[in-house]
Amino acid sequence: MEFTAQQIADFLQGEVIGDAQVKVGNVSKIEEGRPGTLTFLANPKYTHYIYTTGASIVLVNRDFEPEGKIAATLIRVENAYSSIAQLLNLVSQARPEKKGIDSTAVIAASAAVPQSIYIGAFTCIDENARIGENVKLYPQVYVGENVSIGENTVIYPGVKIYRDCVIGSNCIIHAGTVIGADGFGFAPHNGSYEKIAQIGNVVIEDFVEIGANATIDRATMGSTVIRQGAKLDNLIQVAHNVEVGSHTVIAAQTGIAGSTKVGSHCMIGGQVGFAGHITVGDRVNIGAQSGIPNHVKSDSTLLGYPAVPAREFARSTVMIKRLPELQKTVAELQKEVERLKQQLKEK
Amino acid sequence: MEFTAQQIADFLQGEVIGDAQVKVGNVSKIEEGRPGTLTFLANPKYTHYIYTTGASIVLVNRDFEPEGKIAATLIRVENAYSSIAQLLNLVSQARPEKKGIDSTAVIAASAAVPQSIYIGAFTCIDENARIGENVKLYPQVYVGENVSIGENTVIYPGVKIYRDCVIGSNCIIHAGTVIGADGFGFAPHNGSYEKIAQIGNVVIEDFVEIGANATIDRATMGSTVIRQGAKLDNLIQVAHNVEVGSHTVIAAQTGIAGSTKVGSHCMIGGQVGFAGHITVGDRVNIGAQSGIPNHVKSDSTLLGYPAVPAREFARSTVMIKRLPELQKTVAELQKEVERLKQQLKEK
Amino acid sequence: MEFTAQQIADFLQGEVIGDAQVKVGNVSKIEEGRPGTLTFLANPKYTHYIYTTGASIVLVNRDFEPEGKIAATLIRVENAYSSIAQLLNLVSQARPEKKGIDSTAVIAASAAVPQSIYIGAFTCIDENARIGENVKLYPQVYVGENVSIGENTVIYPGVKIYRDCVIGSNCIIHAGTVIGADGFGFAPHNGSYEKIAQIGNVVIEDFVEIGANATIDRATMGSTVIRQGAKLDNLIQVAHNVEVGSHTVIAAQTGIAGSTKVGSHCMIGGQVGFAGHITVGDRVNIGAQSGIPNHVKSDSTLLGYPAVPAREFARSTVMIKRLPELQKTVAELQKEVERLKQQLKEK
Repeated sequence: MEFTAQQIADFLQGEVIGDAQVKVGNVSKIEEGRPGTLTFLANPKYTHYIYTTGASIVLVNRDFEPEGKIAATLIRVENAYSSIAQLLNLVSQARPEKKGIDSTAVIAASAAVPQSIYIGAFTCIDENARIGENVKLYPQVYVGENVSIGENTVIYPGVKIYRDCVIGSNCIIHAGTVIGADGFGFAPHNGSYEKIAQIGNVVIEDFVEIGANATIDRATMGSTVIRQGAKLDNLIQVAHNVEVGSHTVIAAQTGIAGSTKVGSHCMIGGQVGFAGHITVGDRVNIGAQSGIPNHVKSDSTLLGYPAVPAREFARSTVMIKRLPELQKTVAELQKEVERLKQQLKEK
Repeated sequence: MEFTAQQIADFLQGEVIGDAQVKVGNVSKIEEGRPGTLTFLANPKYTHYIYTTGASIVLVNRDFEPEGKIAATLIRVENAYSSIAQLLNLVSQARPEKKGIDSTAVIAASAAVPQSIYIGAFTCIDENARIGENVKLYPQVYVGENVSIGENTVIYPGVKIYRDCVIGSNCIIHAGTVIGADGFGFAPHNGSYEKIAQIGNVVIEDFVEIGANATIDRATMGSTVIRQGAKLDNLIQVAHNVEVGSHTVIAAQTGIAGSTKVGSHCMIGGQVGFAGHITVGDRVNIGAQSGIPNHVKSDSTLLGYPAVPAREFARSTVMIKRLPELQKTVAELQKEVERLKQQLKEK
Repeated sequence: MEFTAQQIADFLQGEVIGDAQVKVGNVSKIEEGRPGTLTFLANPKYTHYIYTTGASIVLVNRDFEPEGKIAATLIRVENAYSSIAQLLNLVSQARPEKKGIDSTAVIAASAAVPQSIYIGAFTCIDENARIGENVKLYPQVYVGENVSIGENTVIYPGVKIYRDCVIGSNCIIHAGTVIGADGFGFAPHNGSYEKIAQIGNVVIEDFVEIGANATIDRATMGSTVIRQGAKLDNLIQVAHNVEVGSHTVIAAQTGIAGSTKVGSHCMIGGQVGFAGHITVGDRVNIGAQSGIPNHVKSDSTLLGYPAVPAREFARSTVMIKRLPELQKTVAELQKEVERLKQQLKEK
């Protein structure tokens, strides 16, 4: 299926600069653009590619001002990134929907499963689970006892959801993720450890996306909570009784230790570690691989191990680089002072 | 089901302070305590909540001395944390046990499976596997050829155990964990790598708990060993030929490279990395996100990257913070010395 | 089955030193060597064990010169590590091959599956997938729509491959790994995030090995690519549109953020983090736990957070250790200078 630049501009409420009749049938990255494809420019790092890209159409932000000749037709839009997202969603939604319940699926008699659902092969739904309308459970998923899943949620292959957990509506959970495994709680007892039963659950609110092979542990008591609109990447560890605030975004391989509360609208880099029992405010930015040992105030930007304000981290990094020089300066000063003492004595 | 403070105190061999007839039917966290629930105070960080909690009963340590008015009934016990653990276990054990073999499970004719077992849907037990009494294999588990699993062990959904591995009795392995994948061994050969076959296995001793989506690789030769009573959290990587000592506790996302031996009764934080071929002594404490490049003596407390004794790390952190100041001091000293030299020359 | 030292030496084109008729039936590690087993010495750290090992035969490099009495028969070979690898492969290949298609497997009518394949229980192959000759799909694997898998590739239990991904020939993918989950892409929109559909795929070239519970995300547009011969360990995160070069080796728990390109023949330690949108050259060595925020030139050796040339890291580490001393020296200098000023004034 092909579309003209004009058709796309109309759909995106954008403005065509160049040949409005050029047609595209696919999308591409700007650095790999081929004729017959549409691409976009959002990240300024990639601006230089616009002068050489082979793509037929480039979506650009309304404030983009060319500094040279561009072969492609441009479509100016309010936000190039949002616009490409809209187009990608169109392509994605054009795919036929998964439907129906595979005959191999095992569904407990007491489970509530609507007709509108997709359930793939070898998926198992345990006693008293309640599944919402239009939910998609891919193959080999496990839904434990009393679990509830809200409407339109998509659960990819091999996800395991332990008993009593609650998944909201319009969520996406990627393959291999484990929701509701026991929190890591043990009491020392005569040189060994006794397990502390974890009788709480996990509550995932609406519009949450969780990547592949992540682990969200159930609470000891009460709930581990992922609030509305939060986005968690792959291989993330969320320990028992943690709370992740709404619209907070967390990159891959980050870990949050037990009972810590992370606020809303935070942006957390990859491989970050949070200590347990701390509170992180709202709109906090934390750089990749940082270690967060203590409470963090709202609107902070932190980086490092242990994390400090980002500016301080940059300064320390420079200072550490200059340490050999500093050491040398001090050694020279020692000699100078020795010489001065000697000279003074001789006077 | 409800219990009075007196009944609970009798069960825990504790002492009631306040209304012995108040009843509770559930547990809660102290900061979220509601009437009709029991909570506990073990971590001193939470002490202030005891004066405001809505919970009807609070378990406290025998040495707890109130510094204000407390509305709740207290039960004084030897160890509040152990006591709440006992109560949570009671609640947990009150649940009906999973039993029986699901008709969809595929069990090799040569596998030994006792009547007392639970085997969930879509679990696959390969040739010559031997499963102990009262073992629970949740749905979608894979038990490879010649694997043996000791009595009372619980294997959660989707765990994969490769051939020849040995799992002890009374172990718990959480969903998605992989036991016995090949160690990461390759020999460079003409600019590419040749795989080194990994013909060893994994041996997990008794009373071990392993979290979700962890990976314990098989040995090249011999065994990768997790000793009795060790507790491993989620997303932990244990490489080939590693040995983890008895009653050692390791937090999430830590990785141990090949052939390293970690002693017994160690406490290892999250996201720690151990180099390969090193030996870590007994009762070693390692802070979160540390990097351990070399051997570690017993009874050490380490922190940092590369890890140093915890005090040294704290001191270095302070020193690094003060570097700009130090730099300034040195610059001033240089000027002073220059001035002195000048003055001396002028005399 | 037993072999004499002479038989093994002939097979490996090696030279026997000692009793050529001694027989072995198994392999062991040098520090745990038992009579009747063969071991090897490749890592110089283990040299001292050769004088005490109980193994009957030890493979050594041709240039090994004993510095004491050795009880075992030696076999001198060009490369002891390669030779043991050859022997381990022999042992491994002696095992009966997995064959046939389990009756429980669900295979779409439109999927192309040759007779030579092994498909384990509860494996699901979706519409239009194309599987090559001699492929092994262990139990509980998911192969999505339009996926293609090249000949001789082995996919271990529970691997999940999303639609449209391409897996080369002679690859090994370990249990629990997820190929082709959505890249982590969201556009901020009125205080929340809109998902950006990820319509690209993952391409894994030939002779690639990927460990257990790793995650390789599909591209937003185009492909995430793992080039020929690359070896990735367990729990590794590869984000959307990343490219990993040929014959690059990456240790466990490392993460590569979106659109980053890592060159060929690199050696990357465990728990390393790469920022997004950077280019790492060929033959780059990066130490464990490093953070790579920027482009890296070919043939670099980096270490640290943020990573610096390895020598610089070593120097900085020493400098940081000496900071308290430096601080003290500076304080003494201040006093000295003060004294000198005083003395000068008094003259």
